Formats: sequence, C-alpha cells, structure tokens
Amino acid sequence: MINVTMQALGEEPSAIRELFAYGLARKAEIGEDRVFDFSIGNPSVPAPPAVSAAIAEAAAIPPQQVHAYTPASGTDSARTAIADNLNRRFGQEYTADNLYLTCGAAASLSISLKALIEPDDEVIVISPFFPEYRVWVEMHGARLVEVPARASDFQIDVPALKEVLNEHTKAVIINTPNNPVGVVYSEQVLRDLARVLADASTAYGRPVFLISDEPYRELAYGGITVPWVPSIYPNTLVCYSWSKSLSLPGERIGYILVPDAVDSSRQVYAAVCGAGRALGFVCAPALFQRVIAQCVGEPADIESYDRNRALLSGILDELGFEYIRPDGAFYLWVKALEPDENAFAERAKKHELLLVPSDSFGVHGWVRLGYCVSEKVIAGSADAFRVLRAEYR
Amino acid sequence: MINVTMQALGEEPSAIRELFAYGLARKAEIGEDRVFDFSIGNPSVPAPPAVSAAIAEAAAIPPQQVHAYTPASGTDSARTAIADNLNRRFGQEYTADNLYLTCGAAASLSISLKALIEPDDEVIVISPFFPEYRVWVEMHGARLVEVPARASDFQIDVPALKEVLNEHTKAVIINTPNNPVGVVYSEQVLRDLARVLADASTAYGRPVFLISDEPYRELAYGGITVPWVPSIYPNTLVCYSWSKSLSLPGERIGYILVPDAVDSSRQVYAAVCGAGRALGFVCAPALFQRVIAQCVGEPADIESYDRNRALLSGILDELGFEYIRPDGAFYLWVKALEPDENAFAERAKKHELLLVPSDSFGVHGWVRLGYCVSEKVIAGSADAFRVLRAEYR
Repeated sequence: MINVTMQALGEEPSAIRELFAYGLARKAEIGEDRVFDFSIGNPSVPAPPAVSAAIAEAAAIPPQQVHAYTPASGTDSARTAIADNLNRRFGQEYTADNLYLTCGAAASLSISLKALIEPDDEVIVISPFFPEYRVWVEMHGARLVEVPARASDFQIDVPALKEVLNEHTKAVIINTPNNPVGVVYSEQVLRDLARVLADASTAYGRPVFLISDEPYRELAYGGITVPWVPSIYPNTLVCYSWSKSLSLPGERIGYILVPDAVDSSRQVYAAVCGAGRALGFVCAPALFQRVIAQCVGEPADIESYDRNRALLSGILDELGFEYIRPDGAFYLWVKALEPDENAFAERAKKHELLLVPSDSFGVHGWVRLGYCVSEKVIAGSADAFRVLRAEYR
Repeated sequence: MINVTMQALGEEPSAIRELFAYGLARKAEIGEDRVFDFSIGNPSVPAPPAVSAAIAEAAAIPPQQVHAYTPASGTDSARTAIADNLNRRFGQEYTADNLYLTCGAAASLSISLKALIEPDDEVIVISPFFPEYRVWVEMHGARLVEVPARASDFQIDVPALKEVLNEHTKAVIINTPNNPVGVVYSEQVLRDLARVLADASTAYGRPVFLISDEPYRELAYGGITVPWVPSIYPNTLVCYSWSKSLSLPGERIGYILVPDAVDSSRQVYAAVCGAGRALGFVCAPALFQRVIAQCVGEPADIESYDRNRALLSGILDELGFEYIRPDGAFYLWVKALEPDENAFAERAKKHELLLVPSDSFGVHGWVRLGYCVSEKVIAGSADAFRVLRAEYR
C-alpha cells in the first residue's frame, strides 16, 4: 500500500541513535558527569567566531539579499571562494563551474551516486564503512560490493579490491580521514589504487569513478598530510561538508567537486545538476552559502581534538587495549575484548561507557569511540575503562 | 557511462530560468526601469523583521546550541510550535509526531512521493501544473496522469478526474492556492473530490492518498478562505514551505504533515522518515528550524501582493485581456492573444514584457505573470501591454 522498503528504512533501529538516546536518558537519571558517551560524531568544538559574525552580519542587511533562491548549483561568490581556497591549498585551477553546492555530505553522496549509477552497476566500499553508503547505493539501483580494509592497518587492501573490479564497476567510495577507523589513506596506497582503477577503466572500456568522501579532510593530526585525491586519480569526484571542519552539522552545507579532468566532466556535472533536481534539492541553504563564502578559509580547531586523541589513547595504552592509532577524524577503533562486539558494548554500558559496536559498520570484533567530547568526559572515563578491562583478565 | 536520464534533466532548458536570465542581462543593458520581468516566483516582499531578529539572536548564543544535528524529523520545539499553530487555526489536535520538517516544499513532495510510490503506481495531477511534479513522480517510479482543470474557472474537474481513477492510482497532487493559475479550490470542489477518492479507495481496495502542496496557503485575498484539506479528506498529506509566506525561498525550510487520520498513519510517517534518509536529507537546516519555532505565527504581508494584484488586474481589464481572476498565490493566468503561447511571449518580449509561456505547465494558449514584483514594475508595464494589445487588433 505504501513503499515498504522506505517504511523498513524508517523503522530500522540504529545502534548509534539508540545509544545516543540511552545516553541522554541515563545522564538525566544519574548526572552528566557519570555517563561517558562516546556514541556520536556531533562536534564538541564550537563553530568559529567568524561564523557567528557572518550570521549576525546577514541578519542586519535587507532580507531579500540574503534569503532569495540561489542558482541550483550555488551562488557564484560561494563557489568562487571555494575554488580559490582549493587552488591555493592544492595547486589546482578549479573555477566555480567545477563546484555544485549541496545540503551537506549526505546530499553530496546521494546526488553523485544518482548522477553516475545505471542499471546493473556495482559500487565498491571499503569495510568497515559508514552505513548510509549502502542505503544510497542501493536506493539508486546499484549493488554494493564490500572490500575489507587491510587487516594490519586498515588502509585500502588494493590487491583485494582489484579482484572485485569488473565490467559492472561504476565507482569506488573512499573516506579519508576515515569514519569509523580514524586512518588517513597514504599517498602510496592511493597511487596503488589509482593504478588498478586506471587499468580496469582501460580493460573494461569504461571509466571507474572514484568518489572521495571528505568531511574530515581538515581533521588530521601530528602534521600528517591528507593527499589531494584528484591529483592522484584524475577521475575523482570530491564530496565535502563543513559539518565537522566548521562544526555546522545541523545546517547542511557542503559541495560536490567535478574537476575538468574527470571523464566527460561537463556531462557528469550536468548529471549532478539533474540528480539534485530529481531528488528534490533546489539549492543549498542561502544564508550558509553566504557564511561559507566568507569563512571557507577559517581553520578548524584541531588542537582540541588532538588533545582528546592523546588523552584517550593514553588511557587505552595504559590499560593495554588494542586499537588503531588514528591520524585523523575524531574516532578511535578499538578491539572488543570478546568476539561478540555487541556483548562487549553491553558490558561497557554497565560501567556507563557508551561505545558503538562495529557491526553498525559492517564488521565484527571492534567498537568505535567518538572523541569529539569534552576532555572531562574522557578523563572521567578512565576508571570505567579500568574496571571493564579487569573483568576480562 | 553515466546516468543519461540525470544528464538530460540537468541539461534540459527551462523557459522560466532562461527568461529570468534574459531579464537580468536586458536590465543591465537598457536599465532596471525599462524591463517588466514577470517571469519568476521569488517573493518581492522581504522576510518579516521577526525573522531577522531570530537570526541575530541565534548568532549571539553558543554555536553548539544552534548548529548541532537535529533529529531527522526536526526539533521538538519547531514541530510543537507548528502543530500548535495549525491546531489554533484549523481546530485540529496535531502533535509533533505528525510533523516531519524538510528542506522546503520540493523536498516535502519528493519525500512524500518516494514514501508512497510502488512499482506500477499512477499519480494524478491537475494541468496546468508545476513542472517538477513530473520529475519527482517519474523519478520515484510512477506514471504521471494529467487531468485538465475545468475550462471555465480552472477548479478541479472532478468528473474528469473520476474517469482516470483505477487500481493503480496511488495519489492525487493538488496545489491550492494554485501555481500557475492563482485559483483557490473551493470547499465544494474539494468535497466532490473527497467523495470520488473515498469511493475509489473502497472500490479498488486500497487507499488513494491526497497530497496537498500548499506553499501559497497564506497568500489569499479578498477575505477568501483556503479550506483545510485534511478536514475534508482525511487521507491527506500536507506539503508545506515557508518560501513564500515568510519570503525564505533560498533557505529551504518546510514540512510534511501526516495526520493520525491518514490510512496507516504511523507506517506512512515511518516511510517518510525512510524516504528522507534514502534521498540524502539528514535534517532540515537547524538555524531555520529555530527561526520557524519562533516565527511560525508571523503573518505574511499579503497587502503588498493584493495591491499588485489589483493594479495588474486593472491594467489588463482596461485593455480587454482575458485572464483568470486570481484569489491566491501571486500569479495571473492570461490568455495569449494567438494560439501559440510561445509566439505570443516572444512578441511580448519585444516590448520588454517577460511572460512565461503556458507549455512550461503542460498546456497551450496562456501565459503566466508573476506579480511578486515592485509596484513600479507593474505601473511601468501598462504602456507595453497597451502596445502589445494594439498589435493584435
């Protein structure tokens, strides 16, 4: 009678959302200080003062100049500011015509996939992976193909990925810095990936697109460089969002970059415009297009997250937890102390530690800790981790 | 190689957009005062001062309280404020649970259709109709069925609509006050419609949903009442936007209302949530959810549009143009002075009158004038209309 697939998607329980809701209730019950909620990726760092200043400024000028429809692809001023910023940082020559503003990274990915996918296509993801990838890939009619990350360091397992490439492969989605693992893909691994994708494009006579999902691009620590993917593999679409770098997750503002070097670049860009239209996006929020035009160069406050990373790593190191040392994003990927990650997370919950079981990301045996929380939460969690660890000795 | 349907949609020329772009260029060439641009529906009335005040207030409080992710369905405070407002105005008992906030009416419609449509479904629209209806209906896999409006007054032709109802009919989309015609559907015609939809639901053993697209609800003139559709046909979803009533078209903020009286209401609501997720909407823009929670009761400035309506009608009356006397929205539907509406619009353009030919809305022989412009533009256009009229005598 209605679309049962959509109903099921709407009713599907989400471990992350449920854990977050449990955390809110539990904090109300026993106090904020006593619940150690590592469940979600809502930035703890506030948006920079320049953002609030740009909003206040917009509130003071004639409303018609701020709130009118913009072109579907975004205002020239915002797109030009973004292109200039990318050109400065990555030595490129992008223009406004390479950019399409979106309502955040989810929209960027959904629109990009819709623009590319044809019947019988396959899209490859690296597991563990952000669970909505499956929803969007399948929604737009392709099959999702999972390639497990390299066991040793959670970089891309390029030889394994090469094995699943075939004449149906339309695209590969990568996410670097990575949610949920925190790894930053190395230049070497990206070069290896580029070679096998280029070879496959030649062998099967049709281009394999790389979709680089980069909401965490600015969150990298210890001086590590996050390689600019389109410089390594030209046939790359970049999907970006300011949710994390400017702490604006609720405002839904991001972009799709379609460089000129992408195969049939102008046709792909037109398909992006068509997909945005077909899905019901009219334009990205106008006020935040204005904010971005002014604040695109604002640095992200990575020091706070870096301190959290050091503090939490120190606690886990001391207690002998096994985890992937993160170079970016704000997640720690920790080995569960028993094979069943859900049983482990349930036991952690008894000590008020809220950790996301790895089956949410398509793999078993791990938990994800989001350290975009206050230092107080991390410091306060040390005893709980100690007791949890002791239970497994 | 890419999705050619999306590419074609992205490359499709739009008469409205092209006319608008032509208008901008022409104004730069010969001066703002000498081009009479009736092409688009961008409100000329500014957002009310309460909106700017709410934005300024938000800029002054801690950013994390403003810009964080909201629940996918919207904040409780915004949804409760909207429910209270509807309850007061229409004597209902809605709660936050009946409301799902969206990125504007386009998103409301795309999501509602995705939630309802199954393979082999049909969706009925009344022609002339907003051209994106076809895009969304077909995108989500249904057939669009057009039923011409009643020739005399452009109300719904209920007997004609009854003829096309069948076991595949999933929904009927209505838009009142109407774009492009400006008509407000009468209570009588809606009651007639409700009866045939209820009969068809019984006859074919499955409910026919009514989707009431209402971005112009508050823009009605001369004391006319816009009937509350769910009170007349219980199986109604309302798709709303503040683009016109609060002059916020670029900010993308609206809602879907799923009343409890809708068939399988909670399942439909879940499917709406699932469809929003699948299409790539995460939440409506958080800052504007806050603005709406504070400003939902702000009256629209209908006096300005009403003055424009009187002024433009007076000019057309004096010159003997035939048109549909509009009760709502901000459009005038004028009979072209020759059978080919494109030839007529081209001739008008020679006199700097920018009118949208009716084939953009699926019918022939008319043009649409958007009177959401300054009074000066309307007053200045009188001579041009006079010369145009004289050419056809």
